[in-house]
Amino acid sequence: MAWERKLMRTVRVRNSQKHGVLARLLAAIAEAGGGTGSIVLLNETSQHVVRDVTVYAEDETHLQTVLDAIHANEGTRVIEVRDEVLELHQKGKIAIRSRYPIDSLTTLRRVYTPGVAEVCRKIARDPAKARLYTSISHMVAIVTDGTAVLGLGDIGPLAAMPVMEGKAMLMETLVGLSGVPILLNTKDPQEIVHAVAAIAPGFAAIQLEDISAPRCFEIEERLQARLDIPVMHDDQHGTAVVCTAALMGAARVSGTDLNQAVIGQIGLGAAGHAIGRMLMSLTGKPVYGADLSQEALLRFEKSGGRKSNLEEIMRTCDIVIATTGAPNLIQPAMVRKGQIILALSNPNPEIDPEDALKMGAAFAADGKSVNNVLGFPGIFRGTVDADAPRITHEMLVAAAKTIAELTPPGELVPSPLDKKVHKSVARAVAETAMKQGIARAEFVPYVEE
Amino acid sequence: MAWERKLMRTVRVRNSQKHGVLARLLAAIAEAGGGTGSIVLLNETSQHVVRDVTVYAEDETHLQTVLDAIHANEGTRVIEVRDEVLELHQKGKIAIRSRYPIDSLTTLRRVYTPGVAEVCRKIARDPAKARLYTSISHMVAIVTDGTAVLGLGDIGPLAAMPVMEGKAMLMETLVGLSGVPILLNTKDPQEIVHAVAAIAPGFAAIQLEDISAPRCFEIEERLQARLDIPVMHDDQHGTAVVCTAALMGAARVSGTDLNQAVIGQIGLGAAGHAIGRMLMSLTGKPVYGADLSQEALLRFEKSGGRKSNLEEIMRTCDIVIATTGAPNLIQPAMVRKGQIILALSNPNPEIDPEDALKMGAAFAADGKSVNNVLGFPGIFRGTVDADAPRITHEMLVAAAKTIAELTPPGELVPSPLDKKVHKSVARAVAETAMKQGIARAEFVPYVEE
Repeated sequence: MAWERKLMRTVRVRNSQKHGVLARLLAAIAEAGGGTGSIVLLNETSQHVVRDVTVYAEDETHLQTVLDAIHANEGTRVIEVRDEVLELHQKGKIAIRSRYPIDSLTTLRRVYTPGVAEVCRKIARDPAKARLYTSISHMVAIVTDGTAVLGLGDIGPLAAMPVMEGKAMLMETLVGLSGVPILLNTKDPQEIVHAVAAIAPGFAAIQLEDISAPRCFEIEERLQARLDIPVMHDDQHGTAVVCTAALMGAARVSGTDLNQAVIGQIGLGAAGHAIGRMLMSLTGKPVYGADLSQEALLRFEKSGGRKSNLEEIMRTCDIVIATTGAPNLIQPAMVRKGQIILALSNPNPEIDPEDALKMGAAFAADGKSVNNVLGFPGIFRGTVDADAPRITHEMLVAAAKTIAELTPPGELVPSPLDKKVHKSVARAVAETAMKQGIARAEFVPYVEE
Repeated sequence: MAWERKLMRTVRVRNSQKHGVLARLLAAIAEAGGGTGSIVLLNETSQHVVRDVTVYAEDETHLQTVLDAIHANEGTRVIEVRDEVLELHQKGKIAIRSRYPIDSLTTLRRVYTPGVAEVCRKIARDPAKARLYTSISHMVAIVTDGTAVLGLGDIGPLAAMPVMEGKAMLMETLVGLSGVPILLNTKDPQEIVHAVAAIAPGFAAIQLEDISAPRCFEIEERLQARLDIPVMHDDQHGTAVVCTAALMGAARVSGTDLNQAVIGQIGLGAAGHAIGRMLMSLTGKPVYGADLSQEALLRFEKSGGRKSNLEEIMRTCDIVIATTGAPNLIQPAMVRKGQIILALSNPNPEIDPEDALKMGAAFAADGKSVNNVLGFPGIFRGTVDADAPRITHEMLVAAAKTIAELTPPGELVPSPLDKKVHKSVARAVAETAMKQGIARAEFVPYVEE
């Protein structure tokens, strides 16, 4: 799958107007180990055809090999090589915008002094009115210290910003929330809790992102204990929701009963721990867990899990979920016939799904197929709509079930850009909050598409 | 001036189609002490004319009097009374928006995983690249604890939010910056400094707003000492810039030489202290200061000011600036012939400018004419464009001079919605930073209109 590659370039090529030049060009790219994305026709004359070809490569060296292959193709001339990803990121991907224009002094006097004073006084008399008359109702802080970003590790808060902006774009595009990146220049859990608590009044919810384990557990717990707005570490619970939804789909496809299956979790970091916990709550049965860290194993045992190891889990479990960050950790020979295997580490899974299937697995998938984007937008939108002070296990399970239900036949999960799915997740989450009696909103508003 | 009133309503009236009904209606409103804003024609038949009339009143009781007068007008029927200000504030006035749509999986893969990883790595290798590839370049935190909001005092951060959103709207509309309201749930200077410093990496600048004196001085100073991005308390320096610009205009109109004039500052809070300091730096001469607080007087003396009192200042100064929050503090009898008087407290000035002029003042104005909006957008835009680590006195003076130069003949200051003024202020501020050698940007980019 070409888009898994780490580098993307748009190559503008001018091919001579002869049969087979493009075909040979694509073959040359493939032979060099490169991938091809969109091919856009730009211009055609009797002599030449100009196209933008998006190519994918593993790294800079590999990219050069691919570009060399393009250059060497007979009848092809490279006009330019563009990095469209970088171009898209220039000046950032998000901005604060007015919801309507200040087009006259009259509007200025309504949105600013003196008109604004009456609104301020209304909120001063009844702070609950801030939800009605300010943007707090749709503002979600996306908080990171940049310690566990994608597969890149501790790259710091500045380098994490492009990811936070991506999350904010998705928040707006999919559910109409305003995600505000908050970059922390401290890694100390106590300082993080203090800082986020200090700025909490301006937000309807707090999304913790890419904060490394084990600090993430403590930070989330302490913040939620202090605040009366929802706090969710996406890498734990968002991932657990989408993974559980995928597992429901995989179980259905392979005819496995989730409640009867023996489940093993390899890797008990933020995601693995949360997935294990969610599956235990869901099935009422313990999950077996493996991790190199004694601390992680202890934590998992405290949450009701059973200490195990890689070999034992592969030998005994019907369902194996791996979130270790260790590529190729699972040897194909370890796979048992009929197993369901989710090898979720990005960008390189613990075992190639095809290898697992060859060894007899009933179902296998990697992290590309289990996209986090399916979870957090609807979960936050539903919680904020219900004005619930926290996100409960039941709300997360409702989200997972909704995603599983809306999965098209033959797919593991729905398309992450399908707004109907996010709207349904939001509604399911909000309604669950209502049923649990923790919603402070009087009704679930219509969620805009 | 109608728009100074504190309440605004839109009254939809149906007048009978006869000569003079509207005129009598407006007379009735005026007689009841109300003001009239826009009058919009909505529908006209042979029988009736329907219009939306915007009316202004002092408070709820007065509004009722005005509405009663409208009801009582012969030939007029009130269809509805709407609070358009409140309507405008519903769900807030700002939102985080994507700068381009996520319209396909290809875009998703470019702005999010896996494409985003390359951008993250670039910034991890060279953090200075964050300015180029993230939204940090245009994000300004608008920070408040809600302790000194408009004329309303300590109404808390939630009730301050409508004002912060108004500032953010102006930031976007006038200079294209993204103002992010940050509401603090602490009033402790140390905690405020810690919290703002902890979240500073996500912003190009920090605007402190509506934080009460004397805490505002300490907070601004300590934050600026800790951060390498500009920190500015708008109520001090933004106000000082606009007030100084107005004073330059007033001096020109009245033929007064600012450098020769004896200047007195009544009220040494956040604004008064900063105005006094700026005028002292500008003229090289001490300013006389009066305040009920000994602490404020001491602080002013430390900044080079001379301790004085209300009576002495009124008796001896050529230019008097009042920022006390005390309506009608200056008795008309105190006014000296030829004085320039800026009575800046909102919504009610220390002396009505008309009364001051009657008593022989050469020039008099109140706070309505000295709109803060003229200062902060251009100051921040210019500083951020230059990538200067702080806002110097010289940069503020450049802003004041630019505003004064662009003031149309006969006006005290330019229109606050004139984007050309803000663009010129930004350029003057950025160029001053360049000249002072503190700009980290290599050139002043073209400031978009």
